[in-house]
Parts: sequence; C-alpha cells; structure tokens
Amino acid sequence: MRKATLLIECEDGPGLVHGVTGALFRASLNVTSNHEFVDAESRRFFMRTEFCGSFEDARLAEEVRGALPPGAVVKLPGAEPHRVVVLVSHEHHCLADLLVRHAFGELPARIEAVIGNHDSLRGLAEKFDVPFHFQPAGGLSREEHEAGILSILEPIRPGYLVLAKYMRILSAPFVARWPGGIINIHHSFLPAFAGARPYQQAFRRGVKVIGATAHFVTDALDEGPIIEQEVLPVDHSHTPESLAQAGRDVEQMTLARALRLVFEHRVFLCRNRTIIFD
Amino acid sequence: MRKATLLIECEDGPGLVHGVTGALFRASLNVTSNHEFVDAESRRFFMRTEFCGSFEDARLAEEVRGALPPGAVVKLPGAEPHRVVVLVSHEHHCLADLLVRHAFGELPARIEAVIGNHDSLRGLAEKFDVPFHFQPAGGLSREEHEAGILSILEPIRPGYLVLAKYMRILSAPFVARWPGGIINIHHSFLPAFAGARPYQQAFRRGVKVIGATAHFVTDALDEGPIIEQEVLPVDHSHTPESLAQAGRDVEQMTLARALRLVFEHRVFLCRNRTIIFD
Amino acid sequence: MRKATLLIECEDGPGLVHGVTGALFRASLNVTSNHEFVDAESRRFFMRTEFCGSFEDARLAEEVRGALPPGAVVKLPGAEPHRVVVLVSHEHHCLADLLVRHAFGELPARIEAVIGNHDSLRGLAEKFDVPFHFQPAGGLSREEHEAGILSILEPIRPGYLVLAKYMRILSAPFVARWPGGIINIHHSFLPAFAGARPYQQAFRRGVKVIGATAHFVTDALDEGPIIEQEVLPVDHSHTPESLAQAGRDVEQMTLARALRLVFEHRVFLCRNRTIIFD
Amino acid sequence: MRKATLLIECEDGPGLVHGVTGALFRASLNVTSNHEFVDAESRRFFMRTEFCGSFEDARLAEEVRGALPPGAVVKLPGAEPHRVVVLVSHEHHCLADLLVRHAFGELPARIEAVIGNHDSLRGLAEKFDVPFHFQPAGGLSREEHEAGILSILEPIRPGYLVLAKYMRILSAPFVARWPGGIINIHHSFLPAFAGARPYQQAFRRGVKVIGATAHFVTDALDEGPIIEQEVLPVDHSHTPESLAQAGRDVEQMTLARALRLVFEHRVFLCRNRTIIFD
Repeated sequence: MRKATLLIECEDGPGLVHGVTGALFRASLNVTSNHEFVDAESRRFFMRTEFCGSFEDARLAEEVRGALPPGAVVKLPGAEPHRVVVLVSHEHHCLADLLVRHAFGELPARIEAVIGNHDSLRGLAEKFDVPFHFQPAGGLSREEHEAGILSILEPIRPGYLVLAKYMRILSAPFVARWPGGIINIHHSFLPAFAGARPYQQAFRRGVKVIGATAHFVTDALDEGPIIEQEVLPVDHSHTPESLAQAGRDVEQMTLARALRLVFEHRVFLCRNRTIIFD
Repeated sequence: MRKATLLIECEDGPGLVHGVTGALFRASLNVTSNHEFVDAESRRFFMRTEFCGSFEDARLAEEVRGALPPGAVVKLPGAEPHRVVVLVSHEHHCLADLLVRHAFGELPARIEAVIGNHDSLRGLAEKFDVPFHFQPAGGLSREEHEAGILSILEPIRPGYLVLAKYMRILSAPFVARWPGGIINIHHSFLPAFAGARPYQQAFRRGVKVIGATAHFVTDALDEGPIIEQEVLPVDHSHTPESLAQAGRDVEQMTLARALRLVFEHRVFLCRNRTIIFD
Repeated sequence: MRKATLLIECEDGPGLVHGVTGALFRASLNVTSNHEFVDAESRRFFMRTEFCGSFEDARLAEEVRGALPPGAVVKLPGAEPHRVVVLVSHEHHCLADLLVRHAFGELPARIEAVIGNHDSLRGLAEKFDVPFHFQPAGGLSREEHEAGILSILEPIRPGYLVLAKYMRILSAPFVARWPGGIINIHHSFLPAFAGARPYQQAFRRGVKVIGATAHFVTDALDEGPIIEQEVLPVDHSHTPESLAQAGRDVEQMTLARALRLVFEHRVFLCRNRTIIFD
Repeated sequence: MRKATLLIECEDGPGLVHGVTGALFRASLNVTSNHEFVDAESRRFFMRTEFCGSFEDARLAEEVRGALPPGAVVKLPGAEPHRVVVLVSHEHHCLADLLVRHAFGELPARIEAVIGNHDSLRGLAEKFDVPFHFQPAGGLSREEHEAGILSILEPIRPGYLVLAKYMRILSAPFVARWPGGIINIHHSFLPAFAGARPYQQAFRRGVKVIGATAHFVTDALDEGPIIEQEVLPVDHSHTPESLAQAGRDVEQMTLARALRLVFEHRVFLCRNRTIIFD
C-alpha cells in the first residue's frame, strides 16, 4: 500500500480519462486526485493522477499505456527524491532559502552540491553540510568554465540544475544535456526587462510593479517556458538599489514555489508553455 | 450538437470517475473539461464535467446515475439563463456593476427586477431597462417588509436573489425559501468584522488590509458558506470614510466574480464550505 | 475658509520646505497634509501641500514663489472640476465604469463628451446623459480623422483626454496639444507586450500573470510615463479570449485609479517617470 | 557629516513643520526625506525626518524641542544597531529567515540570543553563531518560566523581543517591561481567527484567503497594534495542514517586513494603531 503519481501525455482522443481510470480501477487502486487538460492548439492531452494501493510499476504502466494512443508518454516517478545541484554567483538569498527548506525537509529533493563562479557563498552552503565547489569563470572561455562545471556534475548525475542567481549564460550544448531540467530565477517580470540589469531597466521605465520569473532554461536566453511569476508594488521613491533589495524576497519565493511545483511532478511542458496542475 | 455541463455529488467510492466518463463515452460525447474533488471529512464526491455532443437529457442523466451510488445528485442544467432579482438599499456601486455586465451580455443570468428598501436607485435600474420596485421597510415589521418583497417575487419566481449592499437582515423563514440561492456581499474580510459598520471596526482595529466577502446567506448572520474574498492594502492615513470608499471597488469585483462562479455552475456546497471548480 | 492644494516643482536646494511652510504659516493657513520628494538624478524638488484657511490665490502664490529658487513652478488649482473628453472604440467596460463614477459624483472631473471611432457605444453614453460624437476613421487618413476629433474638441476645450480603449494611434502633433493631458489604458503590464494584441502575445509567451497599465501618452507609442499598474494571476487554461475577458476588470480598475490620482493633483511628471503623492 | 533620523511626536498646532525644518535649516543640515501625519481624533502630530550633516545630538534635539509645544517627544536614535532577542518554540521558518538576513547584514539589528521553550532549534541558531538558550516551560508555572527567561535577558538588556512563532502567552507584568518593544507574528489575518489554531479555524470557516499579522504585544492577547499584514489566496483543496504550510511563507515575510519598519524607526504608536512612514 503506497501513494504514487501517474503522469500522462499523449495525442487527444475520445475516452482517455475513462480508459486510464479503468486501468486504475481494475488494479483496485484508489484515485485521490485527478487533473486533465487538453491544449486546444496542439490537441495534446495531459493528465496527472494521485492514487494509492498496491501495484507493480512496470505492469501498471503497461496497462495504462494500453488505454492510450501510440506514442503516449506514461510516467510513474519513484519515491526517491530528486537529485539537484544549485549554481550560484555571489547573491545569497535564493540559495539560503533553498538550504533552509532542504535542511527542514520542505524541499522534495536532495541538494547534492552547490557550484559557485565566486567562492563567497561557500560558508553558507557548508553551514548546511552541502558540498560547495568553486568553479571560477574569470580568465576562462565559456567552454572551459562549463567543462569545469560538467566535471563536477559528472559523478553526481543530478536530475535538475537550479540557477539560484547564477549570473552567467549557459551555452546551447550545455543546456541540451538537461532538457526541461534547468530552472532559472530571473529578476524581472518576463518578458519585461529580459537581459542584464532588470532593476536598472525597471527604474528607468518608471514601472509601478516589479516581479520575478522562474522558468525553464532553453537555448534562447530568458525565453524558456515560464513556471511561476510573482509581483510587488513599488513607487517613485525606489532607487535601482532599493528595487533590487525589495525584489529579493519575491525572487526567493518565486523560485521556491516553482521548485515545489516541478519536484512534485505538477509541471508539464507544452511547446514553450507550461501546464501546471496545482 | 451542443455544449453542456454535468454536475454530480454523491458518497465517495471506487471507480466513480471511470463510471461517469464511461457513460459519456458510450453516448459518444466529447469531454472538454473535468474536475473532481473528494471532501476528506464527509467522504462526499463532487464532479463537474463540460462536454459536447448530441444527447437526450433525461436519458443521459439516467445513464450517469446508473454509474453512481444510490442518493447521488445528478444535474444537467439547461441553457436558459438564470432568473435573478437584485435587492439593494442606497449604495449604487454593486448594482451599477451588475447592470453594466448584464447589459453587455457578460453576466450568464437575466436580471428580472431590482427591489430597493430605498427608492434612490430607481433611476439607475431604469436607465438599463430593468424594473425597479420600491419596498420600504420604515414603519413596517420585518415580516411585513418581507411579505412585500415576496409578493413582488411571486410572479417572477427567480432562481437567485443577489443582495447587492442590501443592508437589512432577512428572516430564517425567508432565507429557507431559497436554499443555496441567496448571495450576499459583505464589506469585510469575514470572519473579521462581522455585523454592522465593518469599516468603522477596521479603522478602530488599525488593520493594514481590508477586504470583501461574497457568501451564501443562511439563517446565521454573516456565517454562510464563503464563495469569494478579495483584499486591498490600506494604511494609517485612511479614515473610516476613505476605507469605505476604497472598499467599494473590492466589493463590486468580489460580488461579480462570485456571481460568475455560481451562475456558471462552478460552486458546490459542502456543509458550511464551498467547493469551487474554476 | 476653504480647502486647497499647493503644488510646487523646482530645483532642489536647502530650506525649501521651511520656506514654503513659512509662507503658509505667515498667512495663517493650516497645513493638513504635506508630501515632498527630491529626484536624485535631476535634483528636482516636488512638493504637494493640502491646507485650509482664507487666502487670495495670486498673493499666496507670489509669497510661496518668493521662498523658492527662480524658475519654480507653483500651482494653486481652483475648485472647478476638470473638463474631460473620453475617446473610445467599441469596448464598453472602461467607459461604463467612468460613466457610473461620474454619475454618482465619484470622479473629480466632468465628462463633457465621448468620442467614438465606432458608433456602438452611443447608447451607453446617452443613457448617462453625456453627448456622444461618432467620428469614423474608416476611409480617412489619420490627419483627416484627427481633424474631425479636433473640431469636436474645439468648443469643449477639455483639460484632459482619456483614451478608454481607444484603439488608434494618435499623431505626434495631436499629442503635443495636450502635454501631460492625455491618459491611456494599455491592456498589458508594460513594457511587456507593447503594441498590438497584448493578450495574444501573453498567451503565446505563457505568462502566469497579466496586467494593465495607465500612462500618459507621448509621441513614443506605449512609452509614456506610467501612472498605475495592476496585475492578475492566470494559468495555462486561459485562452487569448479568456485572458482578455479576465483583463477587462483590471483595465477598468487601473484606469479609474490613475484618473483619481491625476484629477486630485497627486501626479507629477519627472522626465519619463511619475512621482505620485497618494 | 553623517546621516541621521529625527522622530517627533507631540500635540498638533500651527507651524510645526516650519519650526522643525527651521531648526534643521539653521543648523545647516540637509533634509533628504520628510513625513508628517496628524491623527484626526487625538490631534497628535507625528514627524519623521532623514537628514545629513554635522551636528551635536543633544544640542540639535534641544533646538528642535524649542520649536515644539511642551511635552513633545523628540528622538535622535544613534547609529548603533538594535539589540534583539528572538523567542521561539519548535517552528523554524521565521527564525531561519531572521538568522539569514542577520548573517548577511540585511537586518538593521543584532540578534544577541535565541531563547526556546523547546531545544529543537538550537542547531539552527548555532549554525549562525547566535547563542541559544533552552528555557523549558513544561512542569513550570508561567511565572517560573518567565523568571527563567528574564534571568537570561538580564545581562543582555535587549531593546526588542521578537516572538518568532513562540507559542506561549506572556504575562502582563512581563509585557510591561518592554512597552512597544515586543513584536509577535500571529498566523492569521487578525482580528479573524485570534487565539489558538487559526489554520484549523480558517479551514472550518472555509475562507478563500489566509494571512499573517505582525503586531506589538500588549497585555490583551492578539489585540496589540498591527504593524504589517499579508495574505495568500487558498481554496477548498487545502487541508488545515496545507493551509499551515502555505501560511509559513507569508508569516516569515510579514515578520521580516514588520521588523525592518520597526528597526528603521518608521513605526509610531498612536493609541492602539500604528502610523508607518515607509
């Protein structure tokens, strides 16, 4: 008797929910939560089901697949936590927030290591008994810097990379190694103020609300599918510096919420958009 | 070929979704949206399904009922708009908002009449070609006032009464005539500041956020199931009057959203709480 | 004995608040509210003071000017309401909201007329006894269309033009006639999704929050100083059409709040940004 | 040449701003920010001024006092950080947030110690090199428990006590030792759900928004002046446990914002309300 989550993605057609719930019913499994969505443009069907009972994974997946059209993606993620590596530069707030949640069992993932292109957050990571690796970028080509990161990641084999205010751009070949597996926090309400120095840009434009965006990283900078966005009202008395300061709380909350959604298998990718069953 | 919504409420048990979607599948109906929820305490199952296709109402309802335990509530609301009467006192903002939405086809309901215990909003209602009835309360007992209202309602037979800043308390016998059919907008974030003069109370307490609550009316004053709540930040510079003024926008938006949810059959009642499939 | 508002803008320097409050003190005027701000980059000083008492306008302004550096802008707006003309196309929601507020004395301004490049909102304006002028754009050059509008405006001489979902671009010469006097509601969270069809753009980008922006119109499209911005969370189930529908409420609230700020003399322009004393 | 903040509270009267800014002007001090407020009911005047320049504290305070009515409160807080002790029970999130901000210089205060009525957060405090004192309550009377706390506080002499999810009620004599100096985070949107188990209460009532309230502690439980309130939308799918989980982020942000306001001398007390110059 255990709790599990079933994830399905396939071409839409009649009777899909009936078929999948039938497979679960015949296996005497008890559905506790069920979400479906059909993307109107692509005619793709997405389904997330939480259930409990006794079952054999491969056999259940096969039964479910039998109720679906050819090419259906069926996943039954195991109970072991996600293996995650966090990349940082010199800003501490997102990393600190993740380390605290991790230490108190609130992050459904295991942070295996932190990699910094500065060495300044080593003390923070080590306080929480997470290994810190300093991989400088200065004086190196992007390829050399990324090769250094890859050699650190090699023995860890993480499922996800979290860019927690990692202020460098990753190359397309690097990104391609973790499709749908690299999550970034951008310090603006994308697509407003993509690129560098968003708080400076926001100040110049005189906006009355700032925000943060957690998104999957693709090879198009700041253009990947958005997972979560949060905002904060501001006014004329804010300087670029005080905008950045106010923005930090929003950044860390936005990243934490996005990671919870991803790690709990609530996020599907559909072209350049996310479908989220919360 | 038409679009319809199926609403189900029953005791929870295994295979309910499978059974219901099976009935729809066998009838060659195409499900476009599906929500289910089980209330953990009461073990009640709630389901809302949007579908399209050709079908005969009574027969489909019977098929669906066959897949459910005894005592299941199965509804297939027709396409005719809800018949609604709005009760008001002297404040115009919620009524004006509803009349505008109604006039431009944004309210999935028909406002058959407005009843006021003051005569001051007659002009507003009549501008939008909605009949206005003045039913004074002064000098009358509550029973007499309500008898007057009932005689106005008698020929209209509305499905819903909307209390759009109607500042009087309805008796239990009156409320009992529209179970789950009377919706009120209360000018506070309930249960804070129940009762009279909530903005005065909020001012006294020095709160930093005010709100509004749309709820079903039961015979316990301000205690009925909550449909929607919205809030607004305030500060020390607000007087009770400016709190009330700021609150008006929140009141009208909260009421409008609650009515959309109710009229689109998205709200289920479960004891003293609402289950909302949005 | 009357209430008034004093508005000051000048080069920053020592003792400005002391000087201005001294002039008011010597005139036996009672300050009830006072806001100051210095823009760090431009070294401009902005001050807004509410006061009451008996005074002669020109003389008080002269006294105040004597306490300020040369070139200071000193304003003592009179009590007569702003004269406003609203421009619309075919969407009704912002216009309806303004007409209701206007009819019930909640807009500190007088709506002298509505001009539409479609005729479809005539009935709405006339319901509220506001003259409606149909000035079509079809088959006309922009110059001809604007000449038509100008000939309508000529006898009215409005202080402000409000673009309440007026879906056409005004020429630079037209805009130059009302510097700081044309207010637009843009249906996105600028600078995201400037230009046409912002809800379609927001859908394509898969954002999780949409918004609206009220701003002054300058000759750079969608680039004028921002007055107010509001947002709304959305999710993957929204279509471009349902984003637009959800956005309407935000648009009308954002415009109404911006107009209140402008009409109560709470908004100063400082380069391409606004300074707002609320 | 240094930056300082001047805080004034007195009976209202004519010319107060003029008098105070005159004292600063004569001392050749440069005002960079200025806020005033008069509470209409009590006729109390509140003013907060940031300025920079060279001055002798006692002398400047005397000059300012000369411009004010008898009984005026004039404060020129020094630059040394506030000395703070944090009280906790077993929940970690607010404490962790404060320790991180403290460690990275973002809290304008020094956390001298943490006192817990459980020992479980010792490791967290010590990670950040803050002394932890375990003062159990079990088997002790409230007087004995508080005597233990007081003996820990005695050598520290903190200016502020922060109750960061300290789940016990302090006695009136204890509270009286720090008037306006004890800040609590309550896990509801007060005055809704005062008292014990607010998330359980919120679940029972079926609210659609939950919140947190940071307030000064007085001897009336959960009735002290409110500093900051934040809210979060929730729905029927939340259990009391998931409400509590969702609420934690709001609690820690609300407490952090309230403390920033208090420690930056932005909060005045006016009867049972706060006046906040942000």
